[in-house]
Amino acid sequence: MSLAPAVAERLAVQEIELPSWAFANSGTRFRVFGQPGVPRTPQEKIADAAQVHALTGLAPRVALHIPWDLVDDFGALATFAADHGVGIGTINSNTFQDDAYKLGSLCHSDPGVRRKAIDHHLACVDVMDATGSTDLKIWLADGTNYPGQDDMRARQDRLAEGLAEIYARLGEHQRIVLEYKFFEPAFYHTDVPDWGTSLVQCLALGDRAVVCLDTGHHAPGTNIEFIVMQLLRLRKLGAFDFNSRFYADDDLIVGAADPFQLFRILLEVVRGGGYGPDSGVTFMLDQCHNIEQKIPGQIRSVLNVQEATAKALLVDRAALDRAQRDGDVLAANGILMDAFATDVRADLADWRESRGLPADPMAAYAASGYQARIEAERVGGEQAGWGA
Amino acid sequence: MSLAPAVAERLAVQEIELPSWAFANSGTRFRVFGQPGVPRTPQEKIADAAQVHALTGLAPRVALHIPWDLVDDFGALATFAADHGVGIGTINSNTFQDDAYKLGSLCHSDPGVRRKAIDHHLACVDVMDATGSTDLKIWLADGTNYPGQDDMRARQDRLAEGLAEIYARLGEHQRIVLEYKFFEPAFYHTDVPDWGTSLVQCLALGDRAVVCLDTGHHAPGTNIEFIVMQLLRLRKLGAFDFNSRFYADDDLIVGAADPFQLFRILLEVVRGGGYGPDSGVTFMLDQCHNIEQKIPGQIRSVLNVQEATAKALLVDRAALDRAQRDGDVLAANGILMDAFATDVRADLADWRESRGLPADPMAAYAASGYQARIEAERVGGEQAGWGA
Amino acid sequence: MSLAPAVAERLAVQEIELPSWAFANSGTRFRVFGQPGVPRTPQEKIADAAQVHALTGLAPRVALHIPWDLVDDFGALATFAADHGVGIGTINSNTFQDDAYKLGSLCHSDPGVRRKAIDHHLACVDVMDATGSTDLKIWLADGTNYPGQDDMRARQDRLAEGLAEIYARLGEHQRIVLEYKFFEPAFYHTDVPDWGTSLVQCLALGDRAVVCLDTGHHAPGTNIEFIVMQLLRLRKLGAFDFNSRFYADDDLIVGAADPFQLFRILLEVVRGGGYGPDSGVTFMLDQCHNIEQKIPGQIRSVLNVQEATAKALLVDRAALDRAQRDGDVLAANGILMDAFATDVRADLADWRESRGLPADPMAAYAASGYQARIEAERVGGEQAGWGA
Amino acid sequence: MSLAPAVAERLAVQEIELPSWAFANSGTRFRVFGQPGVPRTPQEKIADAAQVHALTGLAPRVALHIPWDLVDDFGALATFAADHGVGIGTINSNTFQDDAYKLGSLCHSDPGVRRKAIDHHLACVDVMDATGSTDLKIWLADGTNYPGQDDMRARQDRLAEGLAEIYARLGEHQRIVLEYKFFEPAFYHTDVPDWGTSLVQCLALGDRAVVCLDTGHHAPGTNIEFIVMQLLRLRKLGAFDFNSRFYADDDLIVGAADPFQLFRILLEVVRGGGYGPDSGVTFMLDQCHNIEQKIPGQIRSVLNVQEATAKALLVDRAALDRAQRDGDVLAANGILMDAFATDVRADLADWRESRGLPADPMAAYAASGYQARIEAERVGGEQAGWGA
Repeated sequence: MSLAPAVAERLAVQEIELPSWAFANSGTRFRVFGQPGVPRTPQEKIADAAQVHALTGLAPRVALHIPWDLVDDFGALATFAADHGVGIGTINSNTFQDDAYKLGSLCHSDPGVRRKAIDHHLACVDVMDATGSTDLKIWLADGTNYPGQDDMRARQDRLAEGLAEIYARLGEHQRIVLEYKFFEPAFYHTDVPDWGTSLVQCLALGDRAVVCLDTGHHAPGTNIEFIVMQLLRLRKLGAFDFNSRFYADDDLIVGAADPFQLFRILLEVVRGGGYGPDSGVTFMLDQCHNIEQKIPGQIRSVLNVQEATAKALLVDRAALDRAQRDGDVLAANGILMDAFATDVRADLADWRESRGLPADPMAAYAASGYQARIEAERVGGEQAGWGA
Repeated sequence: MSLAPAVAERLAVQEIELPSWAFANSGTRFRVFGQPGVPRTPQEKIADAAQVHALTGLAPRVALHIPWDLVDDFGALATFAADHGVGIGTINSNTFQDDAYKLGSLCHSDPGVRRKAIDHHLACVDVMDATGSTDLKIWLADGTNYPGQDDMRARQDRLAEGLAEIYARLGEHQRIVLEYKFFEPAFYHTDVPDWGTSLVQCLALGDRAVVCLDTGHHAPGTNIEFIVMQLLRLRKLGAFDFNSRFYADDDLIVGAADPFQLFRILLEVVRGGGYGPDSGVTFMLDQCHNIEQKIPGQIRSVLNVQEATAKALLVDRAALDRAQRDGDVLAANGILMDAFATDVRADLADWRESRGLPADPMAAYAASGYQARIEAERVGGEQAGWGA
Repeated sequence: MSLAPAVAERLAVQEIELPSWAFANSGTRFRVFGQPGVPRTPQEKIADAAQVHALTGLAPRVALHIPWDLVDDFGALATFAADHGVGIGTINSNTFQDDAYKLGSLCHSDPGVRRKAIDHHLACVDVMDATGSTDLKIWLADGTNYPGQDDMRARQDRLAEGLAEIYARLGEHQRIVLEYKFFEPAFYHTDVPDWGTSLVQCLALGDRAVVCLDTGHHAPGTNIEFIVMQLLRLRKLGAFDFNSRFYADDDLIVGAADPFQLFRILLEVVRGGGYGPDSGVTFMLDQCHNIEQKIPGQIRSVLNVQEATAKALLVDRAALDRAQRDGDVLAANGILMDAFATDVRADLADWRESRGLPADPMAAYAASGYQARIEAERVGGEQAGWGA
Repeated sequence: MSLAPAVAERLAVQEIELPSWAFANSGTRFRVFGQPGVPRTPQEKIADAAQVHALTGLAPRVALHIPWDLVDDFGALATFAADHGVGIGTINSNTFQDDAYKLGSLCHSDPGVRRKAIDHHLACVDVMDATGSTDLKIWLADGTNYPGQDDMRARQDRLAEGLAEIYARLGEHQRIVLEYKFFEPAFYHTDVPDWGTSLVQCLALGDRAVVCLDTGHHAPGTNIEFIVMQLLRLRKLGAFDFNSRFYADDDLIVGAADPFQLFRILLEVVRGGGYGPDSGVTFMLDQCHNIEQKIPGQIRSVLNVQEATAKALLVDRAALDRAQRDGDVLAANGILMDAFATDVRADLADWRESRGLPADPMAAYAASGYQARIEAERVGGEQAGWGA
């Protein structure tokens, strides 16, 4: 069997943004283990990301994190990226590492800290203007560790106020993408803990404020594909941060922990009109390769998303509709499982080769010598990480 | 120490609805254990509920479940209740026990089943008209057990359609109170699984559609008081179903599993304007006394809510605001904990006595002879339960 | 590709016990929906189970639940089973439905109730003697709903005492298989909540007491395959109760919720010597087909176990060992995922045909007319369920 | 009311070890926020810990973490501690921060890494010899992030081997205290994930190997007091690491997240003979004061443990036994709740004053000028943290 032309065609439009920080060192609170060859500069991160795209054809953009990726000339950085065959994607703000943000940023009780946090976001929009990026991703570490530490209601109102000022600064084709997270680094309450909160904040802002769904940011047992469905129904799903997890926000390779869940998520994406360049839904990875190699980790990740997408596109929708209408529980479930059980790897290898891409990107990377080269060349300087 | 007059006064307006089914037999899927003296009729349930109110002054209304509490003449039932010193509260619909509802009710793929479910709700509004009840509580068991079994998106749209028809039937002073639940009895997806879904369905309906928060209907680790805060902020918190849980929807006595959580919830209720007769927030119990005596179980429950409320009212708000503004984490938390650590039981006993109520309602019930009487009298007939 | 002969051969020894109660009505605490054709007697259950075996070759034994499957002459029942091509498997005791057991059975504070529970188990051993069954499966609903309700320590000691008496009654080739469960129907504490407790109780009894692992009986996020590994390492894994779940003990079709987890479990089974007739590990299903047809539900289930087993047997162990020794995280994980991603369905269809079984047992059942026949014939009488 | 003499007497023997690292900087993977006055040396940590003891009388020992607290002369450090009124407690090993340990330590597939990890533990025993410490606490970060990454079974066997060598090195009055943890920093499997695994490893070692229960190291919903009961029953509970959590291993102030749970834990401690100097159970804190002041954070923590202990000692055991024997669910639970609802703070203030301690240790610390002094004096040098 090979992929139906319609499926092959739809796969051709898939674009997955890579996070620049996935190529940098990362770890847990217990330890960040360094790796040889890790980038020291935003340019080196982009170069690594470009490798992933060159080998897979799936990752044409790199998302930046400010200030981790701060450079003097963002226009030049965009040109650098273009020269490497990729573009600049989402701009991610960071209001969790400056000392001022110890008790929050946009939600802080101190107006001075809120001012600082708003200004940071305005500066991020400047970066968007300079790079052509259309999405400002806001993930807030804001929250509290102890009941009573701050007033949750006041914080929510402050959040609305701060977001409104940032939203007002957006250009016509720019969006705020507001991410939610169940917990961590705050341990009692998080100011944007769930899709409902992100949604109501976005609704208050306007059409160009949409929700970001990070697949690792939910309570145990949460049916994520239901949220995908609901946000698409409300036309408020703006982006995915893909990764996988067994427990909390583990930030493992997407599809590694529960490939069936990833398949179900992509089914709802396709079902609800969230797939493809005109859907308004950005696919992005947000992962930490704490112990595995970073470039192959990213390659594996985009391939996993592609495999799950291919399976989602294989579902026999007509038969499924019929079984659902008939209330035939086992038949309907069986149709889904048939698509999931299908081994699409050989077909996807063919698909790649037909586009001049290596059949096996993992092997191609290993054979490319790129890893050895960066390990040899990137000596000295300070390796990039979350703190830099 | 005795309660400050302001606190005593605010406690005086507390009203907690009792669910008629709390007095009936209940259990798990493994077994429903009967108890002697259990009511056989709606009237006997109301009589039992009236005992709880007589001893505590906290429970002036009884919520009904249709068809469990179906009677020929609901006007007469309301009169019966009034004669016993209580009123009829929320009307709860039931679309999960008829064979037709095996795969859903308002969300079912079959229009005939949806019609039946809508009609049931319209009949519930008739009951509201007859009893003077203002709230129609809708908890749906709708969902699926297997991925693919039905189309989640289509179900959500059908839900909106069904609710709209029911909403249109409401009188001017009547409300829909839409409950959400994480899981059970559906095990793959639930059609109203979270506050976000209940909210967006309510927003689509209008001002008289509000959310019901059942304290047992969340994922593990969910910060429930945050949801309370958010829904109050949005003016969309309509009701509580109080109970407690260690694991899933255990339906234990409210305050039994985590009294500190109950306190935090009531803090947000008070903070956000959700307390008192004009708040638009109904307090209701929704519990199962599977192994403990039912009437004392309900007495214990309303006392627990009252204790938590009293503690919430004790918080030194001015000092708390100051500590929060100062970013003094330990001081702010300490002010909260001081209120929680306070033993309010003796003060509440005084408060009760000052209102002609027994100081110790549990002991008063035990001494009243009521239990022995109903056990002796209620012989024969069929004990009420979830199935009847 | 077709299955390697070694794999095909190992698959040939797979035996999965079917629970008699999977063919009976089941449901949630909210409702048990009946289905046409449901057995009224143990004999009819066995006849249905025999259909599953006839079509799959995987299910040669039926587990019984006492008293649900109580008959006057168990020897005759065993003969009946043999005539239908199956044998009697595990005997499951039931100490959770008699009124006496409201607060526990083997752990109850009342010695009279404990006596009754012990006697029930001794009677179950009589059934084992009569049927040739070797395993007494003990799952206890014992626990408490409220802190303080009973003394957990005393209950644990009473449990040990009761088990010891039952153990002493076992024949030389008979075993106690002690199941653990995280929660439900008890909601505060369960007397055998985890594998550790089951293990220490078994260790105190002796070699013929082993642990039963029900895949749905764990806390959210529990790594079940780790427990499989540990129990096999300790030579104390006696049996599986297979099913699947998204939330709690949902009792869905095994492999339906997380097929990758099922694969990982079977990997550890194979890795640790838990596979095959001499392993001492019984495979059993323990599921509820609340809304789907029961016989096809069981067929689907055993096929799912077989598919996961086939994939587990496909893993390239030598390559995996090498990658693990090399610390090559991505390579090692990739080898595992390669096996999981393989579509074994066609090969298993071939395997079945080569053994005179239908290529597609689901289709074969649908075409067999059996369902129509039992729906027509089984009219009147009382359908079997958990309560009967 | 004042505390009964028997209760006051039992409280007098309470000893809670403080972790030296609680006074150092800590944080999440997102950020470690520094605080003024934080210790730069083990000596300064001990000095801070001594303040907690001076003000509460509850914390006579300081636990060390090697190599975080490495000094040239541990005998001198012990003398330093004694001069400050405290002793050296548990020695905690650390095999998670050296680059060699990226994929594990005692469980690593490379014998060289295992050798290094064993040697580290042997060196820790040298520290114990030098300081008079009796407990070697072993918490391992060992585990994997991806299925297949390493062989779980082989790792378990390697663990047993490594522990045996360390155990053989112990002096007659020294113990191994083996801690378990559900997850983090490993995200797929942890080599000692649960009490069962810690127990079986300890059983294989001998009498002087016991389990450490960290209250934050369990799956959601786990009944921790049940584990306390079981380990005490088996005489294998060696130590507590106290802290509290809402989600994962949040390491918040003990009693902050769920004071009722802390009370229940201490009830089982007292019930099972785990309280007091001869019990063999060490009480230790293991917390991170990421955003709150560290010394007051520790003071608050030991006071919380003392309050919960006092309440546990207040339970009317005779009445409880009677209610339990009678199967009176509500009465038995009520007796427990009565103790919990009691406000013991004034009595404990009296208790402190009667021992020459400040009635309000938090206020006394604030008034002491100690914090201002260390903030002024501890300028320059490198603040201690997890990484140093």
